[in-house]
Amino acid sequence: MRAHVLKLTCPDAVGLLARVTGLIAKAGGNLLDVGQYTDPLAGWFFARLAFVGEGIDEPDGVFLRMFEPEARAMNADWTLRPADQPVRTVVLVSRQDHCLADLLWRWRSRELNIEIAAVISNHGTARELVEREGIPFEELDFSSDKAAACEALGARLRAHGAGLVVLARFMQILPDALCREFAGRIINIHHSFLPAFVGANPYRRAFERGVKLIGATCHYATQDLDEGPIIEQEVARVEHYHEPDDLVRLGRDCERLALARGVRFHVEDRVLVHGSRAIVFRD
Amino acid sequence: MRAHVLKLTCPDAVGLLARVTGLIAKAGGNLLDVGQYTDPLAGWFFARLAFVGEGIDEPDGVFLRMFEPEARAMNADWTLRPADQPVRTVVLVSRQDHCLADLLWRWRSRELNIEIAAVISNHGTARELVEREGIPFEELDFSSDKAAACEALGARLRAHGAGLVVLARFMQILPDALCREFAGRIINIHHSFLPAFVGANPYRRAFERGVKLIGATCHYATQDLDEGPIIEQEVARVEHYHEPDDLVRLGRDCERLALARGVRFHVEDRVLVHGSRAIVFRD
Amino acid sequence: MRAHVLKLTCPDAVGLLARVTGLIAKAGGNLLDVGQYTDPLAGWFFARLAFVGEGIDEPDGVFLRMFEPEARAMNADWTLRPADQPVRTVVLVSRQDHCLADLLWRWRSRELNIEIAAVISNHGTARELVEREGIPFEELDFSSDKAAACEALGARLRAHGAGLVVLARFMQILPDALCREFAGRIINIHHSFLPAFVGANPYRRAFERGVKLIGATCHYATQDLDEGPIIEQEVARVEHYHEPDDLVRLGRDCERLALARGVRFHVEDRVLVHGSRAIVFRD
Amino acid sequence: MRAHVLKLTCPDAVGLLARVTGLIAKAGGNLLDVGQYTDPLAGWFFARLAFVGEGIDEPDGVFLRMFEPEARAMNADWTLRPADQPVRTVVLVSRQDHCLADLLWRWRSRELNIEIAAVISNHGTARELVEREGIPFEELDFSSDKAAACEALGARLRAHGAGLVVLARFMQILPDALCREFAGRIINIHHSFLPAFVGANPYRRAFERGVKLIGATCHYATQDLDEGPIIEQEVARVEHYHEPDDLVRLGRDCERLALARGVRFHVEDRVLVHGSRAIVFRD
Repeated sequence: MRAHVLKLTCPDAVGLLARVTGLIAKAGGNLLDVGQYTDPLAGWFFARLAFVGEGIDEPDGVFLRMFEPEARAMNADWTLRPADQPVRTVVLVSRQDHCLADLLWRWRSRELNIEIAAVISNHGTARELVEREGIPFEELDFSSDKAAACEALGARLRAHGAGLVVLARFMQILPDALCREFAGRIINIHHSFLPAFVGANPYRRAFERGVKLIGATCHYATQDLDEGPIIEQEVARVEHYHEPDDLVRLGRDCERLALARGVRFHVEDRVLVHGSRAIVFRD
Repeated sequence: MRAHVLKLTCPDAVGLLARVTGLIAKAGGNLLDVGQYTDPLAGWFFARLAFVGEGIDEPDGVFLRMFEPEARAMNADWTLRPADQPVRTVVLVSRQDHCLADLLWRWRSRELNIEIAAVISNHGTARELVEREGIPFEELDFSSDKAAACEALGARLRAHGAGLVVLARFMQILPDALCREFAGRIINIHHSFLPAFVGANPYRRAFERGVKLIGATCHYATQDLDEGPIIEQEVARVEHYHEPDDLVRLGRDCERLALARGVRFHVEDRVLVHGSRAIVFRD
Repeated sequence: MRAHVLKLTCPDAVGLLARVTGLIAKAGGNLLDVGQYTDPLAGWFFARLAFVGEGIDEPDGVFLRMFEPEARAMNADWTLRPADQPVRTVVLVSRQDHCLADLLWRWRSRELNIEIAAVISNHGTARELVEREGIPFEELDFSSDKAAACEALGARLRAHGAGLVVLARFMQILPDALCREFAGRIINIHHSFLPAFVGANPYRRAFERGVKLIGATCHYATQDLDEGPIIEQEVARVEHYHEPDDLVRLGRDCERLALARGVRFHVEDRVLVHGSRAIVFRD
Repeated sequence: MRAHVLKLTCPDAVGLLARVTGLIAKAGGNLLDVGQYTDPLAGWFFARLAFVGEGIDEPDGVFLRMFEPEARAMNADWTLRPADQPVRTVVLVSRQDHCLADLLWRWRSRELNIEIAAVISNHGTARELVEREGIPFEELDFSSDKAAACEALGARLRAHGAGLVVLARFMQILPDALCREFAGRIINIHHSFLPAFVGANPYRRAFERGVKLIGATCHYATQDLDEGPIIEQEVARVEHYHEPDDLVRLGRDCERLALARGVRFHVEDRVLVHGSRAIVFRD
């Protein structure tokens, strides 16, 4: 029997979880792990249910025929996916390759359940690192005509059928239209513990401010730069003797860990977004 | 409407959560927060459900009349308690008072939902600290006749109707019979990250071993010393220049935090024990 | 023999540490622990030397007669204090007493080498907590005439001979003149990991932003609010189910730890300030 | 001018640091960063001095001609190395390649100042990963004649002139003679926070014990397995829903970080060993 994950969010009401788990039981599904949360301020219901069963996601199967009308009645947003089905992913990268190298290693060792359709970059630096893994590497020139490059990027993402776009230290700002088209499917890693040091050169500014902690933030990309829903954050201690270059080095480990966890939470359908906040049923 | 917490554990089967949440919905209860976990190796089901409703815990109320036969059919161990009802607690302490002082502060500021019936000690050291809070302080002499002292201790715990016994650096070993009688209701704080440094003088031994992390472990007390189910652990970094006394100092903060969290998880009915492992639906 | 701590900062040059340690050796002092750091960007030298010896801080003793002209030649700022001499401290507090209670406990258990001359507040809330420790509690009315209250506060600090002023969640802004007069001797605890959430209501704003980490910052107070040199920071993980009140609760532990460590570093002469950055020879 | 690091340890006496820094100053050297520590229980002196200067490590240069007799008089163990000179390193690995992959990435990105002479394994699994970096991969058969394999290993290490041997999850026990020959130059990563779960299968045992923290320990290998001086440790939180495989996954990140930091501290001459304890002047 195959494990599935049902992710569901809707306005709160009495009996929601009972209805959903009741249908799962009726269809012979057995729960493995349930996370449920009601936001009392927003009056909103969030649930993630992992369960095993036969024919769960068959379009005309027992479960979906019962569940779909129920979900409509609840005004629910939901997804249902086999837990073992990899998410088709495109990674975007610029010159710095530490996050990319980390994702590649986790992909190769099957720690992340993704299928990397391609790596796209505005530089050639990472080509060898990518191609030796048998993954297509595509270079787009953002330096002369940025609008054309963005359009080409959108076309490539569509052509690859990207279910997830990971900005693994991609130093170009995506156009609003692309952010909207792939809303909830673009994950960025920002090299500060947001909202501290929004914008450019966070490590340099962290050094100048003399903070004792630096960090990294994994968040969904939205039109408002560095303002998207936060999925995961990681920090590291710094000392007075750490110069900006040391902060960059220490920060790299924060970035790799926060991004890897954020991507993992996303591809395991653990993240539900409501407004500016991300509900994360952590693993 | 009053919030209640239902804690439930039983052999796994299809439809358990649906049945329980179905009854809650039938009784007009609305879920606030649900944690569910199935141990796939043990085939065991664990759930914690917080929900609001009317007359939920009335012995002859709508909910319990439906739920009790259902729970029997599931072979379930369960508890149902109003979330705002404090747990009647007795704190045991010896000479070191940092954990006691921390618990007293958290109790006074209503961070911990406990009612401290008494503090019992084998020393008079903490008397003033306790009595000035208006809490009875009881001294038992363990130095001459330990068996008699343990018997007296058991009698005091029963007299106080202790729903929870906290060993806040109590340096006496409790007799097996008492551990059994109060099984699952005695919380101890051990001053190492168990299972490292089981036994006496963990900080001194941590220093000698040259570890770079020390810690503290909050666990249920069982007959097997330092072997009870672990509720919470906390660690702190140490450096080569930290001597045994520094480890004691740094460890105190670990002990206070781990104990406070462990007690909090327990009194909020977030902990379910299965064999040697504690399932903790963290907050 | 008594341990002393020499703290020294000056423009960098060849041979500085050799000169200082040479004089200590000449005076028969034996080093216990030395921290030295040269800021390569600023060209500045920082050192903290702990050593034992006889008559080290006697105004006309062997050591000071050699050291003082040398320090003048180096253009050094320096302090020399017996390590066991407590720092005379005034604590300022408003309604929230968790940081105060923590400091009192660490003072009582001799974990912090301070002598609390008085606790001053703009509210009466903490009176009992303070007076039962035998410490004078002084109330100043900031609600009607704030200028007069600030003047009175300055007078009290002077009268108490405050070597250190701790703002333990004191919710009044100090006037510039007072910040200047006590520069480097006022320690504040801010309830966010600065520079995130500078200003009011950081926990509420952290909740709204949906961060996954909250924190606290211990820093020297300067005229520029929340901009003083950072001594210590602490963070805690938060989850989506933590509401603003939970953030306040989790943050309290961060505040207590960061403040306690910051005060400890200060009173052990481990902090040297240069511009907006604090060099901290941690313990 | 080139930076050098002088590492020195000897019985404690008055004036040691003054003598050493005095000679550095005499030779025109300028200190960058000094760490000094005296173990008061052992009466032992430890120092690490980083400084710039001309001709510092020339055998007949001004500095060494003055310093060598002085060091003899102090009964000091010492090393002096240019800070930018990479340490010649051999990595040993078995089937699991996460630590190896991490070291390779840090080596390639120049985060670790090492020169990898070869990777040696008792399996062929990692061959491609290694050879595509242009590093020799050598396979030794430990399954039939272990004594011969160990002898061959020793010969290879000598042939490579290994200044450092990293056991990056190498699942074979080294013979005592090899541990002695390369004492202080073999770094191992153990997959538990030692001394918890000494021996085999630490993650499985951590799961069974129900700990809330798992970890990894980077230590020097000695004849007594898992007993060598600890350089660095790292921990991660685990929850009840983490099965043994999850612990393995979460532990991998601990292992990679602890090993990378431990190797870094070693190759930057930040570690001095005394008995079973490692003095680490951290970066």
